[in-house]
Amino acid sequence: MKYKITVAYDGTDFCGWQSQPSGNSVQDALEKAVFSLSGERVRVTGSGRTDAGVHARRQVADFCLEKEFPTSTVVNGLNAYLPRTVRVIRAEIAESDFDARRSAKQKTYMYLMYTGKPTPLLNDRAYCIGETADVAAMREAADRIVGTHDFKSFMAANSGAKTSVRTVYNVELRENGSFIEFYITANGFLYNMVRIIAALLIKAGKGEKVDMEGIIAARDRTRAKDVAPPYGLYLWEVTYADGRSDNL
Amino acid sequence: MKYKITVAYDGTDFCGWQSQPSGNSVQDALEKAVFSLSGERVRVTGSGRTDAGVHARRQVADFCLEKEFPTSTVVNGLNAYLPRTVRVIRAEIAESDFDARRSAKQKTYMYLMYTGKPTPLLNDRAYCIGETADVAAMREAADRIVGTHDFKSFMAANSGAKTSVRTVYNVELRENGSFIEFYITANGFLYNMVRIIAALLIKAGKGEKVDMEGIIAARDRTRAKDVAPPYGLYLWEVTYADGRSDNL
Repeated sequence: MKYKITVAYDGTDFCGWQSQPSGNSVQDALEKAVFSLSGERVRVTGSGRTDAGVHARRQVADFCLEKEFPTSTVVNGLNAYLPRTVRVIRAEIAESDFDARRSAKQKTYMYLMYTGKPTPLLNDRAYCIGETADVAAMREAADRIVGTHDFKSFMAANSGAKTSVRTVYNVELRENGSFIEFYITANGFLYNMVRIIAALLIKAGKGEKVDMEGIIAARDRTRAKDVAPPYGLYLWEVTYADGRSDNL
Repeated sequence: MKYKITVAYDGTDFCGWQSQPSGNSVQDALEKAVFSLSGERVRVTGSGRTDAGVHARRQVADFCLEKEFPTSTVVNGLNAYLPRTVRVIRAEIAESDFDARRSAKQKTYMYLMYTGKPTPLLNDRAYCIGETADVAAMREAADRIVGTHDFKSFMAANSGAKTSVRTVYNVELRENGSFIEFYITANGFLYNMVRIIAALLIKAGKGEKVDMEGIIAARDRTRAKDVAPPYGLYLWEVTYADGRSDNL
């Protein structure tokens, strides 16, 4: 039986999504919880990796079990074994060919910036970018990203991706009090891509000239040096072929 | 020289504001930082206590030092020694008779409720009250609190207050996406008063009848049993005689 689960986590104290020898990843935590619930040692596959410190509002993962459980038992059972920083929001029975990574059609990330006075209440949750930001300039830079491009300039050197061509469907900069929320939806993302783009938008917001089209055209990682910190980044949602987003 | 400081803290890992033998209070942390900066062991007096888990956006405190420091040195020096969960936002030279507690004219607390799906990203930061709330009913109950009343029904039994009469100047329930923010401003608060009122408002929001006038008139703690959890509570600001609020 294949299960699809939707998971939220606070990435602060994890070494990231992907299983590590240290065992301190979100994937490890989920696999331990699945074993505690079912007695079966299985792989839990996510829609993609997130780095240390990166959060997820709605990550999606799948796993197969011999045993069959009601989906409510999967939710409550896993939550009983998981640390409080990881919560299963929903469980569904999936088609046997469902693959949380390969079946994903679109992903949305959100990068959270804060222009108020730095406060310990936002530690590990938002990037304090200073007390002013030219959101119109940020928007103008962000709009250049939309479309199908070779995003090689935005790919960390140690990425294992076969191609750096991706299609960005939508970007949005939303102002919410002292917060600036940057949403980006694409068919996939390169390693560090959102954090590299966020760093460029922050530059544009500070009044620096950011030639986004030139940087994309250059296909050269040295043209976009900075990487915004992980703790401002949230995997927001993952959409599958049935068109239903997991915006529960 | 008397200094007035404005401090923000994440109360999660503290036993509260007030100094304890364990040394794990915000006051202890500040006194240690003042000693590290100045070499002087002095008392740091806050505008009032906050309980374990309660946060502060703008707590105000004072202390006296023999030595004189520029206020920027006080801010940066204390922040260098403080844990990252406590930040000094501002330091000022105060009149010698300034007393962070006795000189305070008004205080505002905010209680943060969340009506979205529970998420680990709000652990220790907001109270998830379920997915629906009748905000109009909450507002109606909250409005009854405004004015000068004997708030004995809202005072924890172990309070040492001489009188339970307080004047509530203003209440406000603000909806912000899936958040409901409850602001309350008064000349002072009894022990647990805001959390007891918040618990009643949450009841009203769930459709239960809450006879706020009757509960106030009863002057009987057993009429308002519940206490909302500490992690939703924020000391929002403290106002002094000069009329300037510390809403930096």
